[in-house]
Amino acid sequence: MLTVQGDIPQRSADVLSRVRARRPRVHCITNAVAQAFTANVLLAIGAIPSMTIAPDEIGDFVLQSDALLVNLGTLDAARREAIDAAIEAAGGRHLPWLLDPVFVDRSKRRAAYAGALVRRKPAAIRLNAQEFAALAGCAPEREAVARYAAEWSATVGLTGEVDLIADATRCSRVANGDPLMARVTAMGCAGSAVAAACLAVDDDAYAAVAAALVIFGIAGEVAAQRATGPGSFAVGMLDALYALDRHAIIERARVTE
Amino acid sequence: MLTVQGDIPQRSADVLSRVRARRPRVHCITNAVAQAFTANVLLAIGAIPSMTIAPDEIGDFVLQSDALLVNLGTLDAARREAIDAAIEAAGGRHLPWLLDPVFVDRSKRRAAYAGALVRRKPAAIRLNAQEFAALAGCAPEREAVARYAAEWSATVGLTGEVDLIADATRCSRVANGDPLMARVTAMGCAGSAVAAACLAVDDDAYAAVAAALVIFGIAGEVAAQRATGPGSFAVGMLDALYALDRHAIIERARVTE
Amino acid sequence: MLTVQGDIPQRSADVLSRVRARRPRVHCITNAVAQAFTANVLLAIGAIPSMTIAPDEIGDFVLQSDALLVNLGTLDAARREAIDAAIEAAGGRHLPWLLDPVFVDRSKRRAAYAGALVRRKPAAIRLNAQEFAALAGCAPEREAVARYAAEWSATVGLTGEVDLIADATRCSRVANGDPLMARVTAMGCAGSAVAAACLAVDDDAYAAVAAALVIFGIAGEVAAQRATGPGSFAVGMLDALYALDRHAIIERARVTE
Repeated sequence: MLTVQGDIPQRSADVLSRVRARRPRVHCITNAVAQAFTANVLLAIGAIPSMTIAPDEIGDFVLQSDALLVNLGTLDAARREAIDAAIEAAGGRHLPWLLDPVFVDRSKRRAAYAGALVRRKPAAIRLNAQEFAALAGCAPEREAVARYAAEWSATVGLTGEVDLIADATRCSRVANGDPLMARVTAMGCAGSAVAAACLAVDDDAYAAVAAALVIFGIAGEVAAQRATGPGSFAVGMLDALYALDRHAIIERARVTE
Repeated sequence: MLTVQGDIPQRSADVLSRVRARRPRVHCITNAVAQAFTANVLLAIGAIPSMTIAPDEIGDFVLQSDALLVNLGTLDAARREAIDAAIEAAGGRHLPWLLDPVFVDRSKRRAAYAGALVRRKPAAIRLNAQEFAALAGCAPEREAVARYAAEWSATVGLTGEVDLIADATRCSRVANGDPLMARVTAMGCAGSAVAAACLAVDDDAYAAVAAALVIFGIAGEVAAQRATGPGSFAVGMLDALYALDRHAIIERARVTE
Repeated sequence: MLTVQGDIPQRSADVLSRVRARRPRVHCITNAVAQAFTANVLLAIGAIPSMTIAPDEIGDFVLQSDALLVNLGTLDAARREAIDAAIEAAGGRHLPWLLDPVFVDRSKRRAAYAGALVRRKPAAIRLNAQEFAALAGCAPEREAVARYAAEWSATVGLTGEVDLIADATRCSRVANGDPLMARVTAMGCAGSAVAAACLAVDDDAYAAVAAALVIFGIAGEVAAQRATGPGSFAVGMLDALYALDRHAIIERARVTE
């Protein structure tokens, strides 16, 4: 268990090293807009993505994976069927899975569906402030996020200008990142995929999610230094994730209570 | 109403400023190939894209949007159902919507379907010469385009080496752009999305479509100056759309009767 | 017929020139993750992609195409129906088609389905070593690949660190490429699309597949020289494919028996 927030930068560097060494397979049920960027982000950090949502294949894919991502963007009937089969398969293998309830603030049906998925015990939930408010039915304050995490025994990663990570007993803030991240589609979705990859190599979901947000935020800062707009920034994120070294992570991580 | 073509460059700069300030939500039913690039183009100009096509959610999304894009690429049964529900929802809110009848020249069924959509009163139609010929059943001459625009009370944006914008009473040509635009997939689709975003901030559909084609074409010229091929060009388009300033628009716009 | 392997570099340059001059239409049934990059790769070499999988349109699209790509990634019910209709339409016109049996090593159902497609006579099959083992039921050795190619009268392009091209009577190795190619999603899928485009302009499938692997591998080498990671590498591949000249192909091709 991480007891001191000061451990997080070190642990984040360890987690990325393990992803690069073990090359975990991450099966992603994610929205059509995010699929290619998500796959490229996973490949950039050393993970191996797969993306099928065909109901009669997904069980085989999940059984050969090390973590599962369930993202609710562009949620159609096929994706719902795939999600059900995938969570079932993951449960049988005690495979960690992460829920990204994209845009639950825009559709009541989607919010209700996401609520039902939370009951199926994701190891982690990654979402933004509006999505948290729609899912949890309360303002995204630190106390409320910690309570929600405790209630569902999940690590919550609430991302925004400053990210908040909480589980039943711990809470940290990560202040890495760059405003250009909000100008590239699927950036949050891809961050969730990085968190799923980290879950595959660290049994402590809190440490895994914190590592993902630290790594992703720092890659954003590195990319922003060279970018001339959101196009070169997105390309630079992939290059930065690929090249990020231990030293940069520990140097740049901005983690507080 | 724009009465003098000379107003268009100025108005285009105004429209882009309004998009950046108001950040309109644009719901996009668009083809699988175009989704990510379209979302990134919208984010680059300051608009907020959403992309779901799930029939039981799309009404909620459209009701919270400021404009709707209906693009017929990769037209499957799910997209048809989504299109119907989305246009219905848009009609109830008098939300402007734009039709992009991709590849109607390749499939008679798709052309017939697009013809039926035109009868449901899009504010604008963006298409190329072959698509116009298949949809309107006549050559894409200036007179025919103006007649078609008048017949259906829609602004038509016919794109090509020189773009033609027409409504019932007005007609302009925009000569901005670069040949590399034809070497990147979904470039036309993304231009249509920019036009939908402009419709959200200007009640005059003619001004909105003209602005979109001016802005998009100039961004193409800026990107081409630094590109070494279609890959760096596509990246550069996003950077150019993000950085484009009023001065460059007014300076570079090539609008004629 | 190519009888000497030394002919391949020259022939590869010829094939690329023909693609650029004739601009073949390539209809692609490919996975959701690969669609945009595949379309951009085809546009970069001068081919014209289309991507619809709607069952009631696909016949029209295939009938107007010069080659067909059948890629089994993200294989859902809609894609299966599309594949059946497309191969049927291609057969009626003697249109060459290429099978890319993505991830058949991960799903037994998919492997069985791919086996059934091989019986429908693709001109070529492009796959990696694990996929070959799952499809052919034997190790991906040179003899086994040549035997499989002869058995099904197809050219096989087995890609890896060194690529192997075989048909009933010929076999070559191509050693072009760069390790970064494995760090970009859909790179193999896009290489298959290039091979489909080459099939459209060369009646000798063996020469076409060899040309595609030579061209694609060299573009990878050129892109790697300037890349700082997988993001800039993917962008650079598109630029390199667009700009590749005859001289570079003949100079750099590394073809052996």
